[in-house]
Amino acid sequence: MTHTLILLRHGESEWNAKNLFTGWVDVGLTEKGQAEAVRGGEQLVAAGLHPTVVHTSLQRRAINTAALALDAADRHWIPVRRSWRLNERHYGALQGKNKAQVRDEYGEEQFMLWRRSFDVPPPPLDDDAEYSQVGDPQYADLGAEMPRTECLRDVIARLLPYWEAGIVPDLRAGHTVLVAAHGNSLRAIVKHLDQISDEDIAGLNIPTGMPLVYELDEDTMQPVTKGGTYLDPEAAAAAAAAVANQGR
Amino acid sequence: MTHTLILLRHGESEWNAKNLFTGWVDVGLTEKGQAEAVRGGEQLVAAGLHPTVVHTSLQRRAINTAALALDAADRHWIPVRRSWRLNERHYGALQGKNKAQVRDEYGEEQFMLWRRSFDVPPPPLDDDAEYSQVGDPQYADLGAEMPRTECLRDVIARLLPYWEAGIVPDLRAGHTVLVAAHGNSLRAIVKHLDQISDEDIAGLNIPTGMPLVYELDEDTMQPVTKGGTYLDPEAAAAAAAAVANQGR
Repeated sequence: MTHTLILLRHGESEWNAKNLFTGWVDVGLTEKGQAEAVRGGEQLVAAGLHPTVVHTSLQRRAINTAALALDAADRHWIPVRRSWRLNERHYGALQGKNKAQVRDEYGEEQFMLWRRSFDVPPPPLDDDAEYSQVGDPQYADLGAEMPRTECLRDVIARLLPYWEAGIVPDLRAGHTVLVAAHGNSLRAIVKHLDQISDEDIAGLNIPTGMPLVYELDEDTMQPVTKGGTYLDPEAAAAAAAAVANQGR
Repeated sequence: MTHTLILLRHGESEWNAKNLFTGWVDVGLTEKGQAEAVRGGEQLVAAGLHPTVVHTSLQRRAINTAALALDAADRHWIPVRRSWRLNERHYGALQGKNKAQVRDEYGEEQFMLWRRSFDVPPPPLDDDAEYSQVGDPQYADLGAEMPRTECLRDVIARLLPYWEAGIVPDLRAGHTVLVAAHGNSLRAIVKHLDQISDEDIAGLNIPTGMPLVYELDEDTMQPVTKGGTYLDPEAAAAAAAAVANQGR
């Protein structure tokens, strides 16, 4: 017996399309992003996968991706759970900045360090900055846990408590769990599941709108197939390569 | 101190637009219906109302209305609860039939009896009929409670347990509760709150996409203002009159 976990990165957002660092800024999906979400749902149907519970971040691009995919899969009615711990990585002072401009201004090395290093966060975002989320009602209860910037290590640290207390119990209860979230929160889950090293995670990119399915051993919660399975592997490989080239 | 309850009937559905009896058939919103949902959310913002939890039926026209309204109101991240007990009235053998045709075939009296009488359900729908929901996974746990037809009395009987066990506890906990549901499940709630007689409820119509706000006494859970308050009273009155004329 295995448990089924389906990871789904939100479709293209308004700021993906503009090549801006987004992080915790709560932008919506583009029409292309909405279509990606619907296609993700259709892939679930074609694969005979029926989520019985969905987990999302508190961000509308993940929330709406889940809603569109589940509607397309005729599973719009399943229970919904949400947590800020599934949010995208907080990009600190880079939030709202153009990726290509940051690359030109700070150079390739610093740019890639901020984007892909495991433990170097960008400078923190001022609480009174335009793209700060400090004071937003959905984060009112976070207190000292409210991030002002994060590296991937920070994302893992705040995500794993929810993995253990929110998602694993649903898997153990026999649910087919859909997690609709973000590039870096999903990388954090994949790193944990596949026991990827702090160095190797830099090379892992997750494409948008492509369901990634893990069958997990019911005792150990370890993946039966390392790296999981994309329902459309060719499209996923092409899309992951495109993510890796962002900012060029 | 009062508790705040906001009722929102889904926007125009694909079958509203075609003038078909819908009931438990799980049709989507039209573009007009989606726009109505967004406008409902904008009305919440304009009125300074901030839902902190949302309850929906298991039907996509209510689920998607809630999602669109909450997204427009920047409250997409609040907790979601769903129950089949908030579903539209099951219309029995009328599901899928044209309202004007039913009126012509059975006459005005029988038509109005099925639509508006308190305790006369239409004939039951066969389990193997095209528009039966028997066997749908979202209703697999209902067992003997699965309806094959309902009158308004039946809707009230299956809705009130969820009102008491699902919605009232959220109100008493201090939540601003949004209920996104259907013409007849919302009429059932309004009948209960305003203590409308079995005869008088026939004359009550709830327009689509118009938030109806009740302030409830914190002890008695009775409305401070009988009938509640529409955020846009003139538009609501005109829309309710249009609902009353359906099938003409």
